[in-house]
Order: sequence, then structure tokens, then C-alpha cells
Amino acid sequence: MNDLDTLAVNTVRGLCIDAVQQAGSGHPGTPMGIAPVAYTLWQKFLRFDPQDPIWPNRDRFVLSEGHASALLWSLLYLTGVRAVDPDYEVLGRPAVTLEDLRTFRQLGSRCPGHPEYRWTSGVETTTGPLGQGVATSVGMAMAGRWLAARYNQPGFPVFDFDVYALAGDGCMMEGVASEAASLAGHHKLANLCWIYDSNRITIEGYTDITFTEDVAARFLAYGWNVTTVADANDLNAVDRAFRTFRAETERPTLILVHSHIGYGSPVEDTPKAHGEPLGAEGVRAAKRFFGMPEDEHFHVPDGVRQCFERGIGARGAELRASWTKMFDSYSHAWPALAEETDLIQRRRLPEAWDALLPDYPPDPEGLATRDSSGQVLNAVARGVPWLVGGSADLAPSTKTRLTFEGAGDFQPDEPAGRNHHLGVREHASAAVANGMALVKLRPYWSGFLIFSDYAKAAIRLSALMEIPVIHVFTHDSIGVGEDGPTHQPVEQLAGLRAMPGLLVFRPADAGEVVETWRVVAALHHEPAALVLSRQKLPTLDRTVLAPASGVARGAYVLADAPSGTPQVLLLATGSEVHLALAAREELAAQDIGARVVSMPCWELFDRQPKEYRDEVLPPRVTARVGIEQASTFGWERYVGDGGTVVGMHTYGASAPLKQLLKRFGFTPGRVAQAARELVSAQGGSTA
Amino acid sequence: MNDLDTLAVNTVRGLCIDAVQQAGSGHPGTPMGIAPVAYTLWQKFLRFDPQDPIWPNRDRFVLSEGHASALLWSLLYLTGVRAVDPDYEVLGRPAVTLEDLRTFRQLGSRCPGHPEYRWTSGVETTTGPLGQGVATSVGMAMAGRWLAARYNQPGFPVFDFDVYALAGDGCMMEGVASEAASLAGHHKLANLCWIYDSNRITIEGYTDITFTEDVAARFLAYGWNVTTVADANDLNAVDRAFRTFRAETERPTLILVHSHIGYGSPVEDTPKAHGEPLGAEGVRAAKRFFGMPEDEHFHVPDGVRQCFERGIGARGAELRASWTKMFDSYSHAWPALAEETDLIQRRRLPEAWDALLPDYPPDPEGLATRDSSGQVLNAVARGVPWLVGGSADLAPSTKTRLTFEGAGDFQPDEPAGRNHHLGVREHASAAVANGMALVKLRPYWSGFLIFSDYAKAAIRLSALMEIPVIHVFTHDSIGVGEDGPTHQPVEQLAGLRAMPGLLVFRPADAGEVVETWRVVAALHHEPAALVLSRQKLPTLDRTVLAPASGVARGAYVLADAPSGTPQVLLLATGSEVHLALAAREELAAQDIGARVVSMPCWELFDRQPKEYRDEVLPPRVTARVGIEQASTFGWERYVGDGGTVVGMHTYGASAPLKQLLKRFGFTPGRVAQAARELVSAQGGSTA
Repeated sequence: MNDLDTLAVNTVRGLCIDAVQQAGSGHPGTPMGIAPVAYTLWQKFLRFDPQDPIWPNRDRFVLSEGHASALLWSLLYLTGVRAVDPDYEVLGRPAVTLEDLRTFRQLGSRCPGHPEYRWTSGVETTTGPLGQGVATSVGMAMAGRWLAARYNQPGFPVFDFDVYALAGDGCMMEGVASEAASLAGHHKLANLCWIYDSNRITIEGYTDITFTEDVAARFLAYGWNVTTVADANDLNAVDRAFRTFRAETERPTLILVHSHIGYGSPVEDTPKAHGEPLGAEGVRAAKRFFGMPEDEHFHVPDGVRQCFERGIGARGAELRASWTKMFDSYSHAWPALAEETDLIQRRRLPEAWDALLPDYPPDPEGLATRDSSGQVLNAVARGVPWLVGGSADLAPSTKTRLTFEGAGDFQPDEPAGRNHHLGVREHASAAVANGMALVKLRPYWSGFLIFSDYAKAAIRLSALMEIPVIHVFTHDSIGVGEDGPTHQPVEQLAGLRAMPGLLVFRPADAGEVVETWRVVAALHHEPAALVLSRQKLPTLDRTVLAPASGVARGAYVLADAPSGTPQVLLLATGSEVHLALAAREELAAQDIGARVVSMPCWELFDRQPKEYRDEVLPPRVTARVGIEQASTFGWERYVGDGGTVVGMHTYGASAPLKQLLKRFGFTPGRVAQAARELVSAQGGSTA
Repeated sequence: MNDLDTLAVNTVRGLCIDAVQQAGSGHPGTPMGIAPVAYTLWQKFLRFDPQDPIWPNRDRFVLSEGHASALLWSLLYLTGVRAVDPDYEVLGRPAVTLEDLRTFRQLGSRCPGHPEYRWTSGVETTTGPLGQGVATSVGMAMAGRWLAARYNQPGFPVFDFDVYALAGDGCMMEGVASEAASLAGHHKLANLCWIYDSNRITIEGYTDITFTEDVAARFLAYGWNVTTVADANDLNAVDRAFRTFRAETERPTLILVHSHIGYGSPVEDTPKAHGEPLGAEGVRAAKRFFGMPEDEHFHVPDGVRQCFERGIGARGAELRASWTKMFDSYSHAWPALAEETDLIQRRRLPEAWDALLPDYPPDPEGLATRDSSGQVLNAVARGVPWLVGGSADLAPSTKTRLTFEGAGDFQPDEPAGRNHHLGVREHASAAVANGMALVKLRPYWSGFLIFSDYAKAAIRLSALMEIPVIHVFTHDSIGVGEDGPTHQPVEQLAGLRAMPGLLVFRPADAGEVVETWRVVAALHHEPAALVLSRQKLPTLDRTVLAPASGVARGAYVLADAPSGTPQVLLLATGSEVHLALAAREELAAQDIGARVVSMPCWELFDRQPKEYRDEVLPPRVTARVGIEQASTFGWERYVGDGGTVVGMHTYGASAPLKQLLKRFGFTPGRVAQAARELVSAQGGSTA
């Protein structure tokens, strides 16, 4: 540690203090405590070029304690990280300006309250909800290992990046972090380093009021290497810890750093340092302590930016330059692989990726959509070599296993395997998928729809970050049958549909499953949830009914009223589309013209032009029956004031499906009756 | 171990095998493997009287691996546990009959696919979603310790029950279990015993494909005692393990039992034993192995039921009799305390529990509903001594701390404390609250509304079980401000409202907060979610506006159109009620009569008679504006085809609230404009 190091660390602290003070809110204490560690990592170890923050082989830095965002903003500013546009072009302008720091937490600033992916370049993942960052970092490390296994060739280490995550006490308490740590230990992710910023303070007080476990021992139990830094301010010890990580080849590493929240301020080591500005006097006292000018705000002493230029800047530039040179040779030696990595970086699909998509002939018996989806997934995966994923221990049930030759299992001794065994860890599964998508693989994960509840917070982050994760959920209704209400989703569909930015698909048959995957595979910036049946569903005859390509518009007229002028609309998704078709027949026999509208994806339908929407759901036809084996919540948008919904109003029950359908009223007769009542109320014919 | 023990164990196995085979679906392997442990626990240790399965001081048995429900059904049948009616009266009939076992997993059977609380007596909590049972058991043990601290007196150990949870590999992988185990270790819950049924098999295969951590070491790190049973069939070793637990006074105990899934069957130790019937041949082979008659189904050999009678039956009866005798004396010595325990058991409130509820005078500045709720909570807690709870490390922000004298902190050395420090463990917090409610305390827990996502699966269980947990969520909208979209709920309200059985309250001011708590405190069998603001809200003048008691009906006319005949309805909840009132003024100035309807609880409103609903929302007034800082999803139910919603369509942003309100259109002007447009479209006056 030399004087310039100290000066740089204290400059970071000063910027954080000032930004929080200026904003009038925020979290000054964590950056003050952990700045020496973040500085050492960035300046001495991180293989990252500020001139190209999306260089594919960069080390990833995840600020899992996202409330300490000022720390990241300061580093992005001081290292001169450049901005990137939404199409992955590096721009000339900086990611963060001094003005952004001055407008920390204000509308439009590149320095928001928490790091937001795609809003500020240099942010590798959105963080703030605790535990998510570290869990996501496991997915990044898994992706790194997979990329290395697939693309590296002798003499061409195209991918060998490391993943660092900085986490606080809160992250260590969250279950999702425990799940992810267990998984990382299993996979022996030696390219993963978590830095545990242990300042022993949380919002309610000292951690010893509730968190007295031995974290180091816990991580050893997970199979991690653990090393400790007794004082965050001891830059030599910090340096040694990172070298320990670099030298480790068999295990992920936890660096347990004892730090002092609000270090150097009057509120050091107290909960007051966590979530509020230091106040004018506190700011002055801290700056005095650090030997900084007390009344100069956002002060960057001479030499500090140059110091970063000579450190991370020079190292990053050199690493990237030599990598680029190496990659040029690689492109000649291994053109097909190089082309793939390029497609990956641009989130494109290979040509003819959909060549193997199956075609399903009409079949009254049919197959479960989980089954057809599994077949289609395999076809897509053969066309898109970097489509990888797995299940939270339910692959035999969710049918998401890639079974073609060479797909293999992702394991420590088989890092190119494409099937992940994620364990009974739904939350980490979704977070790991997020991490893989952030490294630009195309990940999916699967579970029962009911257990989407466990993963909700991570699913939300995929939507908030606008990354194309594919969430595959099966056992989508009381169709689960005998396992009963604990396993039968009711309100999950509504909950997912209410989430901005998530496309929720509930296809009705194998034909719609193919079209769903066609849409989903091509998504660049949107996650999707597939909601699939456990039970068999007929494969519809598309020579009689409308083609399944209507899925791309979210909803479409599957079968119109026999006469062509519907008196009533039957709106349904998934398994209930078949119920609607049966009810349509029954109504036709009673001379009531019913149109069946299949609505596999509400979000896509809502985006269609009004003309199309009115064509599918003619405003003059107000007799409408929505049919779905789920909470009726939200259906009023489509059935309107004149309509009704045949849906679930309670939880389900444990029984064979047939008994449940009768018990909860999912019969053609009940649907037809509801339709008749609506038509009759309007004075229409009831035959 | 004697021959009768062996016979009884094998009888349990036989019943489980037959029940699954008869049902044609289910999970035979786990009961077969772990039956000796469950038998030993019930027969030799569990302080439980089958004649009174709701005896308050019974030991609790939680089947966290709920898919093994056949094991529990067999034990309930063989021990002759009696049924209990919904009003907590023990009935003469058995909880489970042989006919119920024969109709396992069929509609109406008392033996559903997973244990369901209140459906079958002897079920202490609904299980099936993995990890929930063990996490809930921590709440039960905390409740037991608290009850002991408050009610036991010298010579009167009224509460000293233990809590046992039987868990599989899946439970051990779930994050919620990790969170709960850490909390249990902190609290040194020596009354808690988890039995880890380690059969090394999950659905995807052997656990070593993803779960290779050292579980015992992990639990030691949490501060637990760990003991191991090398073979589940070694009844003496199992016996010793339970004695080890009983002797432990400082730590919770994990008994790690190595078991063989599908023991004795052709599929022993394979994933095939997990989730499907053994098949006719497999059933025969297993019975042959156990020395049971191969073709006799649901066979209970002579002497087995008598064996249980002499074991758990006699011990339970004696324990309960002596407890009852002791409690009689206690009732004389400590009548007030005895009366309290009686109210607790019947889920009643003390008289005058609401005597201290505050009254809020009109105040244009007002206070945040999180603040008024904190004050009201304190008043309720003073009136209801067994209202206990805490926060997932956010009490200073959620304002849920009980601050009156004597409230104290629940800690190992302060077991009568009423404030829980739950740590940054939202999921376990909700599960722990479930456990406390199952022991019939009145628990609450709190967090930010956004983090309800983390706890979703446990919140759902409170609704499914119909237990009166109070979920307190603050920071309820973009009102969060600078922390930005990761912390600003948007879709959470819709998700909670879609959940059957959960009452969701979003009060508009301190007056509505008081009335919300009045309703919530009196709930017997429903959980509630309180959704509260971070920012200040005016306290409304109820001499001018309608009284806040309208909360009890879910929605009410807060302010009618000045002329009394509204042209437009402004429907709002929480902070947006004030926006509606301001818009009403603006519209009045333009001679448009607007009625403001406050809708704090949709679920209660939906239960009102049609007359009341039509009175509040007159069908003839179709110009309706819904206003809520949340996803518009679901609002169509109230605004109808003629209405519109001023709500959120995207995620929020990081900025001070005032900037956000403007950016997202939550201004009186925008609301008034929306109202004018609707009125105008109907040809009404727009001034």
C-alpha cells in the first residue's frame, strides 16, 4: 500500500459521502467501510477494460450489496468506464459523469439508488434485493465455465474470466444465497469469489441480535475455500486474499472481510451509518479523518484518475488487446466457433435454428403440453447450441431434459454439459438463469408452476433487467390432481401476468407449443414464462381450426361461430381451450353461435393494434365467457361488464383430475350454460 | 427392539404401500425408508394423546416431507387419533378411518395427497412445498418457548412441549430451511428437533448430482447439535438419537438418519421408489420381504393397534391427565394467566382489547400509514398480550417495534420478549409466523411490500391453512422514491389480491389504519396483509367525510358528488385516495360531480350484498376512474368497460417521490382529466 493507494481509496470514500449527502438519502456507511477492498480488486485484480465494458472475457464484478451503489458509481467514474448503447455499441461518452454523481438518486441520473443493468454500463446485474447478486454470480460463473469448455481450444483460452461478488451480512442471511452457495460448492466453481463484507451491522442493529452462526464454517461445509481478512483497511491482507482466490483451482472462494461501517465518521460501527447521510458535520469529520479538504465536495485529487489509468486501465487495455489478437487467430483456426461466440454476444440465433421444430398432426388423444414442450425444447436446443438449462429437481416431470446425443450433464468433470441439475432450489435456479443470461447464454429453468412462488423475486429481476430468460412451469392448474392444493396453482398465473415485462404463455396444444417456442426463442430482451399442462391435451386439427401461428399475436380466433356471426365469445387458454371448443359444439346444437378465442399470451395481445383486438373480440359482442383453471383475477379486462368467468375462486383439492373438473365446474355443460345465460340475458336466442 | 416393534413398523409400511398402490399415485418409498424412525418417535417419545390431539401442551410433529403423507395417515389411523371440529371440539369419531386410507388421494378422503391443516386432525401444519414444514417448526418452537416464559410458574410447567420435524433431502436444499435453521440456532431452541431423512435420492436421481455439501457441518455452523443414525432400521440407534435430543438443553438438534428409500422393495435406493406406486409385483415383493401376507391389503395384524395403545396411547393419556390436574391447580393459583391461555386456545381476544386504540384528529400534514400502523399495533399489542412479532430486519422502517414497557426483545436469555429480530430472512419470517399462529399466538411480521415476493410461498400457506397471520408490508409503491425500481412494488398488490383467502388492506389514512387493525385483530381464520405507505398522508376530516369504519365493508363512499348525483366515480386505495379527493375538488370547480370511493379491502367489498355494492358503485354510473400506484391488473373488475385506470404500466424509477408522481402521472390534474374525458365521451357536461 502506498500513499497513492490511500489517496485513491479515500477519494472513493469522499465521492460516496458527498453523493449521499447531496442526495439527502442513501447508504454511505458500506462504501466507507469496504472501499479499500473494492479499490484493491478493481485496481490490482479485475481483468476489465474501462474502454470496453462489454469485452466478452472481462471479469465480472457484482455489487450484491446494491444499496452501496455509490461505491460502484464512484469506481465507474474514476476509472472512466465508457457508456454502451442498447445495441451493444461502446460509445465515446463516459458511463458516469461527475454530474451524474452530483445527481445521485435523481430522475434521469445514471447513478440511481441501486445498480440497474442496461441503464448504466459497467453494471453487470441489477442488485438491491438482497441475496440476488450473489446467487446471480453463480450463474455467471457456471456460464463462464461452460463457455470455456465449449469454445476454448489448445492455445486459445477465449473464455477464462472470473466472477466476483461483494456481499454484506444481509446477503449472507438470505436463503437464495444459501441455495446458490451450495450449488456453487457442488460445481467446484473456482472462478467464483464472494467477498463477504462483514461489518456486523444491519438495519435493526448489531447482527448478533439474530445472526450468530459461523459463516466461514458454513461455507466450508458447502465445499468452499474460505479466507479471512481481519481488517478491510489492511490493503496487503486484502491483496493476499485475492491471490488466495486466484491460486485456488478446485473450489469457489469466500473472502470474509471484517470491515467497519461508516469507517472514519462519527457514526462508525453503528446502525446509523447504514441508511442515512452523515450530515454536514459528519461529512466534515469524516473528511478530516481521511485528510481530505473538508469543504470541497466531489473532490478528486490530482493523480487519482491517472492512478486508475495506470492500474486497471493499463492492465485492462493490455489484456483486451492481447485477447483480441488471440481471438483473431482463433477466428481463422476455428471460424465456426468464433462465429457462434459472436452470435452469442449479439444475442442472435444461428440461421435455421428452427429447422428441427416438429410438426404435430391432429390427434384427439394428444399429449401434455409439458411433453410437446420438452420435444420442442430439444429441437430448439439442437439449433441453438448455447441454449442450456435444467430443472429444480423436476426434469422427469417438467420434461425439460435435453436428451439428444452430446447434450450431457453439466458437472465439474463435464463442464460442456447442457443439462443442469439445480436441486430443490427454485429461487437459486431462477437467479442462476439470470446470471447465465447476463453472460448472454440462452438459459431456461423449470419447475412446477406452484413453485414459481419460491422464485418470484428472481423472476422479477429477469423482467426488470429485460433479459431473455425462459422460465418453464408445468403442472399448471388443478390438472395436477391428487397432489392437492399445496401443488395446484390458482393465483400464480395472475401474479405472473401482473409483472411488467414478462411474457406469460399458456399454450393449448402441441401446435401452440411449437409457436410459443418460436416466439420465445427469438426474444432478445424479454423473459418469458411457459405455463404447461401435466395432463394430456388433444392436438387440434388446424386444417379445420385456425393455424397456431396466431400465438404470435397473443390471442386469435380459433373457431368462429358456425354462422360466422358470434352471439357469444368463449375466451380460454391452455387446457380450457378444449373445454371452450366442446362448449361451442354444445351451443351450436342449440343454435347459439359461439366463437372460441385462444389467448395464450395476454401481453402480446394487448400490444396488437386496436383493429386486430376488436376483430378478435368484437366490441358489439358483450356476451363473453372467460374460462381458465386459475383465479379469475384479471379476466374482467377481456370479458367486460357483460361477461362472466368460469375459473377458480378457492384453492383446489386432492383428487383425480376428473373428479376435480366436476367439483370445480370445468365441464362443457357448465361453460355452455354460462354462455346461454349471458345470451339469454341480452334477449338473444337460447334455442 | 422387540418383535412387536418390528411388526408395528412393518404394518405402517404395509399400509403406506397399499394406500399408494390403491390410489394409483403417490410416494411409497419415503415412508418405507423412514417408518422405523417415525414409529420410534411416536411410540416412545412423542408426548401426544390420540384422544385429544389439540391438547395445548402436546409435542408437535411436523411432516416436512409432506409427500410422505401416507406415513402420517397410517400413524393417525393406527394410534386412533380422534377428529376435531372446526370450533376445536374433540369428536368421538376417528380422524382417519381405514376407509380414508383406502380412498387416499380421492375427493373427500381425510387422507389427501399432502397433509392439510384443519382437514385432518393430527396434522399440525400443511406441508408439501419443501422447506416450509421445517421453517414453520421453528416458529412453533419459538412460540413454545415464549408460552413457557410467560405462563409457566414455579411448580407449574404449563408449556414445555417439544417440536419435531421430519425432513428429506429436498427440505435441506431449500433456502427457507437454511434461513430458519440459522434463526433456530441463534435462539438456541433446545425444544426443536429436525430429523433429516437422508436417503440420497431425489426426483432427478441421486443427490450427489447436485447436493454434495456436508449438511452436518452446516448445522454445526448454525449452532445446532448434530447426531447421526447410520441405519434407520436400527431402532436402538434411533432411540439413542432421540434421547440425545431430549438431553440437549442449549441447542436445537439435527438427527441425521441414513435411510433407504423404498426399503425392502425391488426399487430400494433408486429414484423409482420416490413418486410412483410399487406396482402389484413390487407390493408383493416388499410384503414378502417384511414377512407380511402378500395378498392381503391394508392388513393390520393382531396386536399392533394394542401395541400403540400401550405405547403412545397410555403415555399420552397419562401425561395429559397429570397436566390437566396440574392445570386445574394452576387455574386457582394463577387465574388470570390460566384465563389467557384459554383465550389463546380458542383464538379469542381479551375483553376491551381495543381500549387503547388511538383516535386521530384531522391533520392536513398527517403521518405515514406505516407510522400510524405502528402506533395502532402498539395499542393492540397492549390489549392482546400474546400478539408477538417482528421484522425481517426492517423494524425501524416498517415501524412495527413494540415500544411499551415490558415488550422486550425475544432472545435466548429473554424468552418472554415480544419483539422478534428475524434477520434478513423474509421467507423464514413468514413461515415462522405461520408456526406461531399454529400454536395459536397472534403473530405478525413485517417487511417492505416488494419483499413479499421472497415470502410468497409461506404467505400462501397462511391463506391455505386459514390461520390469522398478520403480514405487515410498508413502502407500498413508487412512494419508496430514491431506492428505485428494485424497491418499488408494482405488481405485488395484484399478486396478493389474487390469492384466495388473504385479506389485503391498503388504508388511506390514520383513521382507516385504526379500522383496519380493528378488523384484522378480530380475525380467527384468515390471514391479512397490511399495505402501508412510507410517505406522510393527511389524516382525513371525518366530520366532513364518511367515517373510516367503512373499512369493515371493504369499500365505502368517502365523499359524494357535491350535488349528490355523481357523474363519475373516483375509486382509489391508500395514498391515491388523497389524489382522488383533490381531483374531486378540481372537477367540482368545473361542475362535474365526482364521488370518491375508498376501497381499502377488495376482498371484503366483494363479500358485501349486491345492494351495498350497487349503492357504493351505482351500475348506472359507468364513468369510473381507478387510481392506484400499482399495476392496473385486476382493476377492470371495478372500473368496468366504461372506465379507465390511472396506474403503473412499467416499473418505477429512482428519484424523489415528487418527481416520480409527475413522471408517472399521479397528479390531480391527470386524474381529473381522465374523469372529464370519460364524462365527455358519454355526452355529459365537461363544463
